[in-house]
Amino acid sequence: MGHLIDRRWMGAALALADRGTGRTAPNPNVGCVLVRDGRVVGRGWTQPGGRPHAEAMALAEAGDNARGATAYVTLEPCAHLSPRGPACTDLLIDAGIARIVAAMGDPDPRTNGQGFDRARAAGIAVTVGVCEAEARAMIAGFLTRRAKGRPFVTLKLATSLDGRIARPDGTSRWITGPQARAHTHLERSRHEAILVGRGTLVADAPRLDVRLPGLEAHSPRRILLSRTPDKDWDTIPSPAAISDLAGVDRLMVEGGAQTASAFLAGDLVDRLLLYRAPILIGEGRAALGEIGLASLTDAHGRWRLRDSRMLGSDRLEVYERA
Amino acid sequence: MGHLIDRRWMGAALALADRGTGRTAPNPNVGCVLVRDGRVVGRGWTQPGGRPHAEAMALAEAGDNARGATAYVTLEPCAHLSPRGPACTDLLIDAGIARIVAAMGDPDPRTNGQGFDRARAAGIAVTVGVCEAEARAMIAGFLTRRAKGRPFVTLKLATSLDGRIARPDGTSRWITGPQARAHTHLERSRHEAILVGRGTLVADAPRLDVRLPGLEAHSPRRILLSRTPDKDWDTIPSPAAISDLAGVDRLMVEGGAQTASAFLAGDLVDRLLLYRAPILIGEGRAALGEIGLASLTDAHGRWRLRDSRMLGSDRLEVYERA
Repeated sequence: MGHLIDRRWMGAALALADRGTGRTAPNPNVGCVLVRDGRVVGRGWTQPGGRPHAEAMALAEAGDNARGATAYVTLEPCAHLSPRGPACTDLLIDAGIARIVAAMGDPDPRTNGQGFDRARAAGIAVTVGVCEAEARAMIAGFLTRRAKGRPFVTLKLATSLDGRIARPDGTSRWITGPQARAHTHLERSRHEAILVGRGTLVADAPRLDVRLPGLEAHSPRRILLSRTPDKDWDTIPSPAAISDLAGVDRLMVEGGAQTASAFLAGDLVDRLLLYRAPILIGEGRAALGEIGLASLTDAHGRWRLRDSRMLGSDRLEVYERA
Repeated sequence: MGHLIDRRWMGAALALADRGTGRTAPNPNVGCVLVRDGRVVGRGWTQPGGRPHAEAMALAEAGDNARGATAYVTLEPCAHLSPRGPACTDLLIDAGIARIVAAMGDPDPRTNGQGFDRARAAGIAVTVGVCEAEARAMIAGFLTRRAKGRPFVTLKLATSLDGRIARPDGTSRWITGPQARAHTHLERSRHEAILVGRGTLVADAPRLDVRLPGLEAHSPRRILLSRTPDKDWDTIPSPAAISDLAGVDRLMVEGGAQTASAFLAGDLVDRLLLYRAPILIGEGRAALGEIGLASLTDAHGRWRLRDSRMLGSDRLEVYERA
């Protein structure tokens, strides 16, 4: 029972963490729920830009009610002092938290178990590993930046059933319907930056903003893949240069075919958003060009279906690295 | 309750009808269940080539137990005498059937309501329209031949996520996995004929048979789309010539891209079997070429998703004319 209750509260903490998805770089998006006697006394999530941390926000909400409470956190509380604020571990100790349940440890060497150690030394019970897989997926941007030195990359493709993204003359309005396009806008709001190639910029002049009620302010930074600078755009000269994008831990690549292929050829795509309309186009522009495949065997085993749903009459499939 | 029970027995009759799918042309594949006192006393389905009819088979099985029974039939019993056998309506009357429940009337002008009329005149209660939509779908081959003078055409495509059917050099073994390929063999067994173009014949030398345990004898007739005759194959010179294929009410088109496109351009495809492997190929051969689309708007509203399932790590989607 205890295990089930922990998982339920951690689910609530993960839902809070998700509010920061794509907005907290260079920090991970963390969620925190403080529970006392079966009731929530404080909630917090990492704020845009990375501060305040989730724990600090939840403790501020709880005030004296934090005493004796259990803190559900999606990541180990930080143990290091920072010019931007005190260590969350110390805040939790000072507030009289009785127990910490964390989904996973923080790989940051400045914390990396020291948060748990210091809490235990202060007499706080610590449980680690509740909903760990979900918590890892939640901070994929942060973890990818740490592990590979580059953002977590989502590639969006919107195609017909036969894999076309436009008619031979370039016409592509519209392949997918309004629900699929709204979903794309929602996905944009969950990334720090969106990237397109110059071909798409010239052909479609995309706004690449978030046109959803209440989320207009969540429009991400816009980046252009181009060897030549552009006065209106941040530009990077090659897919590999995404490593240099400070403050971008989640990047959405929106097109076109040449850009998408370059990212795939560089093995720089972590997640595939595939919107498919129930139409056939026949002769037309393909979703992808050369992606550096050595053989058909080489193509297999790379992608795993993670989610699939209908969006109006279109279907969304989400694939991630296998 | 009566309605639910009728639907349940009709479901059993439809399952029997399905045994004849792709094997009964020029006759429709019909199923029949005879039920007395809540128990099945006879079952029948149209035999290969179209005779005996489902009712005759079920009555032969029931013998004297048919007296007072209800006959569930997926199509109106035939009312016309034929050199190949007596009219099923007369057989049902003579056997003492008390009630007939039919899914739909027979559009054949030799029957077309006369079966029901004659049964009613003989004192048999008649109910029509139970599971009519399912029954219509069951005999799509027969109905398409009657309405359009050509077979019902299923187009099979096996692609990568980006709509490719082969690498640039033509390599296509394998895109989909063993479960998807086995499903294709099952689909073959449900068609009177399979058609390929000469390009596919030369490149792949496909056997186009049914390699499934117990279904080896169900391998359909093989047809080649080619302007020049071939000693080993039945040939037709153009997609429109499928009208001339006597004894073929269900035709499966298996490739390649040029053949598929020609059938689509001719508006000759009724059903789309789309097998998709979770791989990206990039540069390669497209599933389709020119299909005669005037605009993107023209592409919409033609196809409706009817079924979707996983086959191993591949996904099958079945679309039909909207």
